[in-house]
Amino acid sequence: MKAVVMRAPGDVVVEEVDTPRVAQPTDVVLKLAAACVCGSDLWPYRGHNDVDHRRMGHEYVGTIVEKGEDVATLEVGDFVIGSFMLSDNTCEICQAGYQSRCVNAGEYTGSQAQYMRVELADGSLVKVPGGEPSDPDRLADYLAASDVLGTGWYAAVAAQAGPGKTIAVVGDGAVGLCAVLAAKTLGAEKVIVFSRHEDRAALAREFGADVVIAERGEEGAAQVRELTGGYGAHGVCEAVGTQGSMDQALASVRPGGYVGFVGVSHDQTLDGSDLFGREIHLEGGPAPVRRFLPELIERIQSGEIQPGRVFTARMPLDDAAEAYRAMDERREIKVLLEV
Amino acid sequence: MKAVVMRAPGDVVVEEVDTPRVAQPTDVVLKLAAACVCGSDLWPYRGHNDVDHRRMGHEYVGTIVEKGEDVATLEVGDFVIGSFMLSDNTCEICQAGYQSRCVNAGEYTGSQAQYMRVELADGSLVKVPGGEPSDPDRLADYLAASDVLGTGWYAAVAAQAGPGKTIAVVGDGAVGLCAVLAAKTLGAEKVIVFSRHEDRAALAREFGADVVIAERGEEGAAQVRELTGGYGAHGVCEAVGTQGSMDQALASVRPGGYVGFVGVSHDQTLDGSDLFGREIHLEGGPAPVRRFLPELIERIQSGEIQPGRVFTARMPLDDAAEAYRAMDERREIKVLLEV
Repeated sequence: MKAVVMRAPGDVVVEEVDTPRVAQPTDVVLKLAAACVCGSDLWPYRGHNDVDHRRMGHEYVGTIVEKGEDVATLEVGDFVIGSFMLSDNTCEICQAGYQSRCVNAGEYTGSQAQYMRVELADGSLVKVPGGEPSDPDRLADYLAASDVLGTGWYAAVAAQAGPGKTIAVVGDGAVGLCAVLAAKTLGAEKVIVFSRHEDRAALAREFGADVVIAERGEEGAAQVRELTGGYGAHGVCEAVGTQGSMDQALASVRPGGYVGFVGVSHDQTLDGSDLFGREIHLEGGPAPVRRFLPELIERIQSGEIQPGRVFTARMPLDDAAEAYRAMDERREIKVLLEV
Repeated sequence: MKAVVMRAPGDVVVEEVDTPRVAQPTDVVLKLAAACVCGSDLWPYRGHNDVDHRRMGHEYVGTIVEKGEDVATLEVGDFVIGSFMLSDNTCEICQAGYQSRCVNAGEYTGSQAQYMRVELADGSLVKVPGGEPSDPDRLADYLAASDVLGTGWYAAVAAQAGPGKTIAVVGDGAVGLCAVLAAKTLGAEKVIVFSRHEDRAALAREFGADVVIAERGEEGAAQVRELTGGYGAHGVCEAVGTQGSMDQALASVRPGGYVGFVGVSHDQTLDGSDLFGREIHLEGGPAPVRRFLPELIERIQSGEIQPGRVFTARMPLDDAAEAYRAMDERREIKVLLEV
């Protein structure tokens, strides 16, 4: 079968590899319906993380074509969405809603491929009622739920988005845009997004952003305060992962407020005295998408949210190298790979 | 009147100063019933903070002897407890429960004195039903509520102490001990305290600690995991403020768990990648004692809690220098100053 491999930073190819088979009794093998490139795939692409012939892809929707003998809740033929972090969904950490930190976390082969093997299938995958959609836009919605929507949702929940709240979002990539969508869907009164790219700002507005701020740093934070009676945002979603984005988030939130940080953290340092003095709630990490998947599937099926709109381009799997380039050069927000 | 002044690190004296008078219409002047030395007073005493002839003391109970014309809810003769942070209790930050970050925060003169002036009296002080107690132990309980109990309470609330939870406490000073008392009173199933001092460990046990751990670092954290099925504590109260104590707290909490940090932060640095990878909730700062005072007064009056037991010595105000020495040398947990 075909699979996307990153041989080195900037060097993405489609290779012929062995089709995966069930290896553990709790495994399934999926025939993928679609895959995509993630903003976090750009960290190794740009040389910020080591990479050596890595199979790529962690977002996926597909149909079960083979299952291990211990898989109890899923059947061959089921159309499923999975989280990018695998979980048994039974340990205390999972039961508390942190499936992304499951103590028995499983592994998968890359999803930018025709097939993938998924461990801990019962605890990681959620069956989509009604099966694989014929509508390609609905398929894109489901694919988004696997990571970027679930991650943005987690950021908004951690930021305590809800009625009466003003939520600011730092980051206008697919996750930041999904955080806007999540905050608004969860009832936030006012959603503010930091963006300097007109295409992204436009989609943010369609997803529910009330205000777009182009300024950054203290100037940007001052605008947030101006929009909130001088207090700062009730909650901020940090969806980039750099020192600058974290500083922007901390500067934009009110005392006693909430920062949900979901951008993959790179070389961020936080000053204890500053956190102490500003009394901010901080919560973040790889999103426990599994916690939110049933609710997200329902909201997609009801038509309440269309997160698949973050995919601004579709390309065949064979064009994966171009998909990476398009995202690296910020020509596209997110690229769907047709498998 | 007499007041305690720190002239320089290690140099505490009792000086004759002007008795304060109401200066703003929202002020009151209190005749103090008792004062005390705080662990945080030891930071400047030990030279970690600059100090130059500073009037000391921020914990207080006393009787109103003069009030400004805008003070609406309190009367001369009322016996009151105040938070160490003054608040209007009406701004959005106060209303959200973060009175310690009130946007109109007021000031006070030092409480290690015979009288003190308190700004924003309506928003900062809570009248004690029944007036000044004749029982010196009850007086000590009320005095403790002004800071160390309220601060330990905040740490326990931030750590999500409650039924079914295992809560670890880093720090066996008065605040750490009050965090133990708070966690247990809030219903925690198991309370673990890190302590190497038998007198402090003994009081911790009386306050409800189920386990005392003498080991520190990774060895101490491993013991917490052993006591919690390998997961780590549900929540940790950090009540010291050093890098070591914060690292101990982060190492002892389970993924997805909660760290409430109330030790005054000194030169702490947090690594963003570590926080991201471990998915810990972090909340801390100067405690919003005002939020908890009405509840704390009720629990003291019902006899449910006796936080005043953290005072292991009583000395006259004139002996303030010895009180500081006794705490600096860890001979006493906390010293009450009889005014």
